[in-house]
Amino acid sequence: MKIAIAQLNFLVGDIAGNAAKIESAVRQAESAGAELLLTSELALTGYPPRDILLNSAVIARQERAVKELAGACRKTALLLGWARKAKAGGKPLHNSASLIYRGKILATHDKILLPFYDVFDEQRYFEPGSAVTLVKFKNLRFALTICEDIWNDKTFWARRNYRQNPLEALRKIMPDACLNISASPYWVDKPGLRRRMIAAIARGYRMPVVYANLVGGNDELVFDGAGMAFDAQGRLLAGGPMFKEGLLYVDIPVKKGAPSLFSYLISNHYSEPAPLGNGVRSSFVTCYNKLWPPFSSYQQVTNEDLTPLPSSVAQIYDALVLGLRDYVVKCGFSRVTLGLSGGIDSALVAAIAADALGPGHVLGVSMPSRYSSSHSKKDAQILAKNLGIHYWTVLIEPVFKAYLKIFKKIFAGLSANITEENIQSRIRGAILMAISNKLGHMVLATGNKSELAMGYCTLYGDLLGGLSPISDLPKTLVYQVARYRNSISDVIPERVFTKAPSAELKPNQTDQDSLPPYDLLDRILDSYVVKGEDRARLVKKFPKKTALKVLKGVDSSEFKRRQAPPGLKISHKAFGFGRRMPIACKIEHS
Amino acid sequence: MKIAIAQLNFLVGDIAGNAAKIESAVRQAESAGAELLLTSELALTGYPPRDILLNSAVIARQERAVKELAGACRKTALLLGWARKAKAGGKPLHNSASLIYRGKILATHDKILLPFYDVFDEQRYFEPGSAVTLVKFKNLRFALTICEDIWNDKTFWARRNYRQNPLEALRKIMPDACLNISASPYWVDKPGLRRRMIAAIARGYRMPVVYANLVGGNDELVFDGAGMAFDAQGRLLAGGPMFKEGLLYVDIPVKKGAPSLFSYLISNHYSEPAPLGNGVRSSFVTCYNKLWPPFSSYQQVTNEDLTPLPSSVAQIYDALVLGLRDYVVKCGFSRVTLGLSGGIDSALVAAIAADALGPGHVLGVSMPSRYSSSHSKKDAQILAKNLGIHYWTVLIEPVFKAYLKIFKKIFAGLSANITEENIQSRIRGAILMAISNKLGHMVLATGNKSELAMGYCTLYGDLLGGLSPISDLPKTLVYQVARYRNSISDVIPERVFTKAPSAELKPNQTDQDSLPPYDLLDRILDSYVVKGEDRARLVKKFPKKTALKVLKGVDSSEFKRRQAPPGLKISHKAFGFGRRMPIACKIEHS
Repeated sequence: MKIAIAQLNFLVGDIAGNAAKIESAVRQAESAGAELLLTSELALTGYPPRDILLNSAVIARQERAVKELAGACRKTALLLGWARKAKAGGKPLHNSASLIYRGKILATHDKILLPFYDVFDEQRYFEPGSAVTLVKFKNLRFALTICEDIWNDKTFWARRNYRQNPLEALRKIMPDACLNISASPYWVDKPGLRRRMIAAIARGYRMPVVYANLVGGNDELVFDGAGMAFDAQGRLLAGGPMFKEGLLYVDIPVKKGAPSLFSYLISNHYSEPAPLGNGVRSSFVTCYNKLWPPFSSYQQVTNEDLTPLPSSVAQIYDALVLGLRDYVVKCGFSRVTLGLSGGIDSALVAAIAADALGPGHVLGVSMPSRYSSSHSKKDAQILAKNLGIHYWTVLIEPVFKAYLKIFKKIFAGLSANITEENIQSRIRGAILMAISNKLGHMVLATGNKSELAMGYCTLYGDLLGGLSPISDLPKTLVYQVARYRNSISDVIPERVFTKAPSAELKPNQTDQDSLPPYDLLDRILDSYVVKGEDRARLVKKFPKKTALKVLKGVDSSEFKRRQAPPGLKISHKAFGFGRRMPIACKIEHS
Repeated sequence: MKIAIAQLNFLVGDIAGNAAKIESAVRQAESAGAELLLTSELALTGYPPRDILLNSAVIARQERAVKELAGACRKTALLLGWARKAKAGGKPLHNSASLIYRGKILATHDKILLPFYDVFDEQRYFEPGSAVTLVKFKNLRFALTICEDIWNDKTFWARRNYRQNPLEALRKIMPDACLNISASPYWVDKPGLRRRMIAAIARGYRMPVVYANLVGGNDELVFDGAGMAFDAQGRLLAGGPMFKEGLLYVDIPVKKGAPSLFSYLISNHYSEPAPLGNGVRSSFVTCYNKLWPPFSSYQQVTNEDLTPLPSSVAQIYDALVLGLRDYVVKCGFSRVTLGLSGGIDSALVAAIAADALGPGHVLGVSMPSRYSSSHSKKDAQILAKNLGIHYWTVLIEPVFKAYLKIFKKIFAGLSANITEENIQSRIRGAILMAISNKLGHMVLATGNKSELAMGYCTLYGDLLGGLSPISDLPKTLVYQVARYRNSISDVIPERVFTKAPSAELKPNQTDQDSLPPYDLLDRILDSYVVKGEDRARLVKKFPKKTALKVLKGVDSSEFKRRQAPPGLKISHKAFGFGRRMPIACKIEHS
């Protein structure tokens, strides 16, 4: 039996578009001779659908789509992720995987473990299932599971939040394979963890595991795809690439009277998106505002390449490129604009945008003030030239002067302070928004996680835009990822890496006038924000004064983050939806 | 037995401050001869604590506070709401109510029904309890419940999300009273619903119910307090006022060999915050940046006033005053500034701010442009004078001209559009933020819910500020609440009510150039956003073209709302934390 594992990129809420894409995948799997196709979790709605799930029309539309797809599955069965209505008296829906074939639903599994931590809200919508569903299809007994269902098994690693391990019952049952459909968002090095965990489960339960995952960016979340299959010895049989759309095939020999543990042929291939059919692609293009740039930076994956995953920085870079592209295009935009300061943050964002959308779709704007150094202007210009993006220079001095005149009058007698610094940042923001309004570009914010953590940024100034692509990268990681990008082609001038970071909002300013050295700051932030360590641990690990300054900086700038643009999550804990802090509060740390 | 029902206003996260306040309440209850004091739900952390609950130091600090309070309860027992550690293997905490007395925890109830809908995230943190806890104290058998535990009883009205009704077991047990501690956020007319529901439960189960609720504003949520007690016939024995801090007492006669259903004396009184002791008030003041304005607009409540609740508009106005004051003060501010356009929205916000903080703490800024009408400027000035707030005029023309000069250069050949309108709004926003930066004022946004729903507002312009007090009031409700405010004292000029609403960003503009008439728009928004009705229902109830325009307007402006300042929730469904929509999506409505 040949199984196809989908890595498809869905638009959240677009049931008809997503169903059409799935149907084209079914067609392709059919013509490739696959007998079963696995979609990702909640494929029809896209993930995360959030409160769209509370719209009854969306749920009804989904039911129609399931029926239509069932009719369309003549030769290839489909394991489809969707949100189905639950019985009255509990939460309204189940997060389900239905095996559909020749007009019928053969079996349905309802997700048992519903994640609720970090960015997840599944207990807001779904009633849990009670046990893994087993289904016999073409003489093979498959166990159906959804994402989190397999993440609480002690074989390798277990979450500490659930009392139940849905896999436990499979020890006795010994299915011929365990199928898992997921929408497992990316964070750095998670794909390696996922592989090792699933391999351990396959080996531990002596059953093959076939795993399908969503690909694409949906708001803050980027999904890496990377479908895979393991044999009962935990050996990798098939591994799809990260951040790439397409179908992954794995061949399985089925004998008459098949043994309960069957072996796979070590043979698979990965197909490019093109064969998904012109229908899909063209409806996609229409829906996404006539722009869906080719994934030209990726190469065909061969078996030999499967085992090693890309390096962490390469993973992150690819995640940011996909996340930026999907956000921009799925919001109906095709062009972006950003301020180029001559610093490393805007340089990296410009490079990501150029790689994601094509340099012709990116406009970099240099907006020097009286405090801007000559090297800043020069470096911005060289970067734009190297990337081949559009480049404008707009002097903010006349507007700045007009504001200063007002301030002189209304703030008579008061000395200059952060006010005069912020206004420069806000003038730049207003100019970028004017470009957005006039030309239909999306503005990209260029701030990093270290700044956002400490509130070292200007609300309605540099913290402005439709998307903040690198807001989950601490400053030290910004440098590393920028280095990685330069290793592909040398686009960011060397001086941008070596000069002292500065906001250049007053004479001779550097970031370290206000912030601890970035290498120390980022380690403290990793401890407090990402690992969630408490004050006692912080003051033990780091210089006390600095640790407490960082703690206070993070706590007191929540109001800025609440109004920040969405950022792309690439760490275990990003600011935004997965970190829900009150604003008007006083956190007592000891 | 005399029972005291606390209506205390806590600062989220401030365990020491909240514990000190509770201890002072214990002292006062003691000297009033009360044998039992009920706090609100999660009193020690404040509500909603959100991800502060994941900080292990906060949890440890709470445990210490419980011990200290237990030691302090010598004569009066305390039913205390707190988050206690749960056993390993599930979610980390319980949402608990502990009866503590003379150094000991006599009994603890863990909340069974954990709300997860709208603004609630309790299933993110808490492991549910399994049954109502019963405790015998001074010969009376009390059933302990927490908030939602009593909201799934069919006697009056039931949520449809839970399979369990924790009260059901009490039919057989027949406790002497059911105690409920809550953090039940306000929405319009909910206090009446709550009263009727609790009365029905008391009557239906033939048991007295004593109910304590949180008071105060915490970020988007305002809690109205309004503690109460009913006898076993469902008669109101005691009812605390809405939006007011203090202790409510109810006297209960206890006989030797008390009957299982005891009767209350119809006697109670409500005490003002002052008797809570100087210790509390002064520590409060210190913590809240030296400003905690007196609740002078409230009157002493007598028994005669208890039964009728204030009218809807009066409730809403009081909720906004308290919500604004608490947000500003709990964020460490004492002064606010806002733009005064001469329109009804900014007029209402100015009145609320003046009532909340005192007119001397409010600065209204008129920022006319070349398109501002003379009546706008005049009306703003009269309003400021009537309210007694500070008033500045700042002309934006010089900055506007400087921007237009830039636009002429970079947008050569392109005609004027929304760009030139938005920039005026953004100049005003930048001036208000400069005032905030220079003088330490919090900026108040003045937008209403109708605008926010349709995206009829400028990101980083009028949609800017620390708080957006009326962002949950549709335009038609803004007029009603403003009328109510004028009925107290005539502060908003009559012309502000009668003239056609306009943003005045281009010549002869009115809101209705872009939006449907407000009375129709607001009814459609109520249907779609508040009631969650779907497309089919909308086009049946309203003119189809208009209904679809509104649907599209709401769906497509999510990106603005994501970056909007927090707003005060006064409706059943507000934008913000309780409505979680994706941005990059396409909602398929049919």
